[in-house]
Amino acid sequence: MKYGVTVLGAGSWGTALSMVLADNQQEVTLWTRSQDQAVFINQYHMNPKYIKDIPLPHNLIATTDLEMALTKNQYIVLVTPSHSLYDLAPIINQWISNETKIVHAIKGIDPESLLCVSDILLTYMPKLLPENLAILSGPSHAEEVALRKPTTVVISSKSITVAETFQDMFMNQNFRVYTNTDTIGVELGGALKNIIALGAGISDGLGYGDNAKAALITRGLAEITRLGVHLGADPSTFAGLAGVGDLIVTCTSIHSRNYRAGKLIGEGNTVEEAIAKMEMVVEGVRTTKAAYELSKKHHVTMPITTQLYEILFNNKNAKEAVENLMARVKKDEVEANLSIEK
Amino acid sequence: MKYGVTVLGAGSWGTALSMVLADNQQEVTLWTRSQDQAVFINQYHMNPKYIKDIPLPHNLIATTDLEMALTKNQYIVLVTPSHSLYDLAPIINQWISNETKIVHAIKGIDPESLLCVSDILLTYMPKLLPENLAILSGPSHAEEVALRKPTTVVISSKSITVAETFQDMFMNQNFRVYTNTDTIGVELGGALKNIIALGAGISDGLGYGDNAKAALITRGLAEITRLGVHLGADPSTFAGLAGVGDLIVTCTSIHSRNYRAGKLIGEGNTVEEAIAKMEMVVEGVRTTKAAYELSKKHHVTMPITTQLYEILFNNKNAKEAVENLMARVKKDEVEANLSIEK
Repeated sequence: MKYGVTVLGAGSWGTALSMVLADNQQEVTLWTRSQDQAVFINQYHMNPKYIKDIPLPHNLIATTDLEMALTKNQYIVLVTPSHSLYDLAPIINQWISNETKIVHAIKGIDPESLLCVSDILLTYMPKLLPENLAILSGPSHAEEVALRKPTTVVISSKSITVAETFQDMFMNQNFRVYTNTDTIGVELGGALKNIIALGAGISDGLGYGDNAKAALITRGLAEITRLGVHLGADPSTFAGLAGVGDLIVTCTSIHSRNYRAGKLIGEGNTVEEAIAKMEMVVEGVRTTKAAYELSKKHHVTMPITTQLYEILFNNKNAKEAVENLMARVKKDEVEANLSIEK
Repeated sequence: MKYGVTVLGAGSWGTALSMVLADNQQEVTLWTRSQDQAVFINQYHMNPKYIKDIPLPHNLIATTDLEMALTKNQYIVLVTPSHSLYDLAPIINQWISNETKIVHAIKGIDPESLLCVSDILLTYMPKLLPENLAILSGPSHAEEVALRKPTTVVISSKSITVAETFQDMFMNQNFRVYTNTDTIGVELGGALKNIIALGAGISDGLGYGDNAKAALITRGLAEITRLGVHLGADPSTFAGLAGVGDLIVTCTSIHSRNYRAGKLIGEGNTVEEAIAKMEMVVEGVRTTKAAYELSKKHHVTMPITTQLYEILFNNKNAKEAVENLMARVKKDEVEANLSIEK
């Protein structure tokens, strides 16, 4: 089936997802705030700031007219920066209806309200019905998707029908889509993995090697699963693409901003210097604060998150923090893992 | 406490484990078949073929006298090649007693008998009591352990006392040891991950990128967990260091022979050429055959293992095999994951 779809946000991930939809011959409208960017996309079929050297499909049309973009199509893909949602959500709400179906591909938890992206959307878009909301997540660097490299993601919604509709819209030979209904797990897996990516970067920056990094990722997966399950997620989601899959790709690939920011810190830069050098938002810093607050509020043990919080917000020395993690008492691994289920 | 320990096998992993024990001031005897190697180690405190440029502790003594090495100490660390076990196990049995405690650090499943290493040892060493056997596994490249980089492993035994004794012997600031009693899970996690590492190498060799590799590792973890649980393992072991931890390090590090062999195949070498270029045993090839036979025997679905078997033993084109994996019907991820529990 062919769909009319509006993609909000023309950064690297929004553009890459638009390309998938355009490859599938959907009628895609890509909204961006930038008039220059919209004109350039429509005239030259390139988005050089975010997707280098890869031409965009000609059936991908950009616009800066948000009202037109939203009223035109029933299906919306939301890929704007997480920190802009409080401003944008009420505006979007004006021009949608109870029929509008939204899939978001935004990874983060607000460190002040402790709301995840879906909560923010449902709170500030009263016209959006909970069953019409879906989440797209999984191991998916935008650059590789734009290059049509094989990629596999999960689309999750409380309504399996809505999840399957978006699956049908996105699925092609290079872009495989699984569905599930564990929205909390998919949302939290995508957000929390950025914390562990920061930690993996710090470990590499300190020169600790692959053994240490693998241990950190493993223990990290255990602690984000523990928090997720406490908040209502299905543990099997964390064993899937939106959990361990996304975690692996984020912790082991130079494409990841969070990993690179961590590596700079491990190499001796201050947190401020590392963030400044990234020139883009490092989502994992906000998410570390949010997860730290959630772990305290819900009494869930998160040793890696806690040490990262100390590094990022209390100027703790990175080497000392990692040594603290390693020096934890010798422990029965089964017991440590079983706490996942609690 | 101080222990007298004999390490059998002076390859890279046996030597690195001996170094950990010697760092802990244990009285270590390292047995090797090679007279030249033993003399060199004792005279120059180096093992250049396996551990380049790193001096060995002076309290690490090598010998070629197997009888002396075995009768001298109650504690044995077994790190010989898996294919030599049928010959070696009956010989070892002559010189051990019911008091002997063995920890093995060997990863493999025999493709003919379908026995794992612990089964082979217990079958061919009647003097070894099941509760006196332990397994050491986890994300641990020997080179990094020899460099005293932070490393975390699991020691598993049916007897938690035996596991804790070995933990006490090995544990130090750089080498952290967790214990558990899921011997089947720890044994299978270490062996089966080599299959997925071959597959990850093939994916990289074909140039498919990080998204594809992360998806392959995730689906691979699901299928080796499925087989393991069917054979009696605890699923939480596969979520721990001996499961996903070891899997990550093997699939993402250039140190891994199995990954490198897969990469050569993905780049267009024949299986024979790839194995010949490795100049060492590629354990994952034997393990793929064993797991394929086990999956058929026990009716456990293992799509990645099956495609690898076709590549390795039936000359199937690697690109076609990976495309077959990607082209599987769209599926509910929860359903796919839940099958882990079956």
